[in-house]
Amino acid sequence: MAPVRNGRVLFNEIPTGYPDPSRTTVYDQSQTIDLDNEPLEGGFLVKILVLSIDPYMRGRMRDPSIESYSPAYPTGQPLNNYGVGVVLRSANPSFKPGDHLYGFYPFQEYFVAKDAKGFSVLENKEKLPWSAYVGVLGMPGQTAHHGWKELAHPKKGDVVFVTSGAGPVGATVIQLAKAEGLKVIASAGSEDKVDFIRSIGADVAFNYKMTKALDVLQKNGPINIYWDNVGGETLEAALEAAAVGARFIECGMISTYNGGEPYCVKNLVNIVGKQLRISGFIVDNLHEKWLADFYKEIPPKVASGEFKHKEDISKGLGSAGQAILDVLTGKNKGKKVILVAEE
Amino acid sequence: MAPVRNGRVLFNEIPTGYPDPSRTTVYDQSQTIDLDNEPLEGGFLVKILVLSIDPYMRGRMRDPSIESYSPAYPTGQPLNNYGVGVVLRSANPSFKPGDHLYGFYPFQEYFVAKDAKGFSVLENKEKLPWSAYVGVLGMPGQTAHHGWKELAHPKKGDVVFVTSGAGPVGATVIQLAKAEGLKVIASAGSEDKVDFIRSIGADVAFNYKMTKALDVLQKNGPINIYWDNVGGETLEAALEAAAVGARFIECGMISTYNGGEPYCVKNLVNIVGKQLRISGFIVDNLHEKWLADFYKEIPPKVASGEFKHKEDISKGLGSAGQAILDVLTGKNKGKKVILVAEE
Repeated sequence: MAPVRNGRVLFNEIPTGYPDPSRTTVYDQSQTIDLDNEPLEGGFLVKILVLSIDPYMRGRMRDPSIESYSPAYPTGQPLNNYGVGVVLRSANPSFKPGDHLYGFYPFQEYFVAKDAKGFSVLENKEKLPWSAYVGVLGMPGQTAHHGWKELAHPKKGDVVFVTSGAGPVGATVIQLAKAEGLKVIASAGSEDKVDFIRSIGADVAFNYKMTKALDVLQKNGPINIYWDNVGGETLEAALEAAAVGARFIECGMISTYNGGEPYCVKNLVNIVGKQLRISGFIVDNLHEKWLADFYKEIPPKVASGEFKHKEDISKGLGSAGQAILDVLTGKNKGKKVILVAEE
Repeated sequence: MAPVRNGRVLFNEIPTGYPDPSRTTVYDQSQTIDLDNEPLEGGFLVKILVLSIDPYMRGRMRDPSIESYSPAYPTGQPLNNYGVGVVLRSANPSFKPGDHLYGFYPFQEYFVAKDAKGFSVLENKEKLPWSAYVGVLGMPGQTAHHGWKELAHPKKGDVVFVTSGAGPVGATVIQLAKAEGLKVIASAGSEDKVDFIRSIGADVAFNYKMTKALDVLQKNGPINIYWDNVGGETLEAALEAAAVGARFIECGMISTYNGGEPYCVKNLVNIVGKQLRISGFIVDNLHEKWLADFYKEIPPKVASGEFKHKEDISKGLGSAGQAILDVLTGKNKGKKVILVAEE
């Protein structure tokens, strides 16, 4: 067979504010690949089907001299993130053609991986769409699950506040909290999202662009558990409305990712007086303790419909730049996934 | 015997910034007491010997409509805090004349307590001055001990940063950390205090008024444990210089106690990326778990000289207003104690 296009999304330029789909990344179609003859050198050739778009990717679009928990994207190279692909050819005994692999992929259509490490075969007994495996069943769902199990310490009667409640992390947290019988307050940035949050069980759902978080929390709190995806003014409101001994689970602070002067949180002294426990975490470091649990508990609940989730799928790698901006500005309508190819 | 003066320090007016010794409190000498005939009504009469002055008292000088972990001081009433007194007469079988009691006292010379609850007899086998029992062996020492035991989780090779290192809490933390063989960086606000910090074992000691905490931490860090007594800009520096997985023990934030616009901590996002654990605590809630341990471990070390401490004693209740201001501005030269009376 003749070589085919191997489209790639290259990191082109470090953004100063929000990433610009016309400058920060470039969709490059110049590379080709001969799928039958591309040398494997002991590795395996994967056709990438879906790729995940997540807010944390903004943190990787930085000057590589700045250290952080996740490596900077080098300019001129493809972006990378979690995804699902199907093996076309393999010289590695771990995987055979037709296997679907969850793992960390470059943003391109085809990819020869040299090492099986970091890839796992998805059995998908439930026959869920592969996109679910980068959202509610992928890194975001695992983030929600692991963080909740490790840090929430829920007690009967607790009130939980979840931000970015319509996102794949927040929506999973809401449903984990409701499964324990807790009262859940959750926020999002559009009426559609608020409707979705309500549909998955939140007792109080509000649009933070229309209603001040502090007002809602003062009326419906105090809160015992705060799931923070946003930081800034919302974190300040949560500190103000926290109950004594509340747990703050610091999953992300999207309000600070795109530069500008960070919001001045004025009431950190509440940490002392209210004896708060504020914990940041990175999902990768909790897999060893919680991943087996996750796979046992969550996929069956998603398949049965007990756990709901919502996806916002963009078709083709060419849509990645805009998809990243949408996630960072909250324009996505659910877990953002790039459908790179149908099988 | 004729009635004698019963001097009292009354809370006179809620301060807006730093307390003003000529307005916030008043030393009132109008009350008298007949020590032989004052009715006990089942209680006991105490002559107060020493009273503790602590930064947290500023938080109690607030409008009582503002809730906090410790009750507001009512205007027109005496201040109160931890102290040591000697029983003169008793109608309560728990205590006999000559017993020295640690407990919570009003700021006055003599006091009839109705209830034994909250008072404990100090045996003082080590014959230490009573002032030690409101400092290194009182609430501040207990604060250091309980907070460290509960929240530090020290590991071999850890670097610890302690603020207000010359204060009775900080100095105890430094010595607890050194006893575990850790590297300690500590700060204070004068050269005298820095000398003291060095004398009790800190590996790196600096005057935060002359040297930026961030510079010191970047050179000598990253830090694994941060003992926060100050908040604000120093907390920001600690967030910047924190190692992955560092523990922040939030004991106090004196930089925010006296009003004004709080310092804007700009880098809270480090909590997520560095997977920090930030914990506020109030010593009273940890007594059940740690107080027996404290009395077993610390007094012998103080008596033997293994644990050093420094006191700054003001004589007479009339000095209390100035003493409070000194503690809040850092002018004290050690644990601030009011010597109300010699025995």
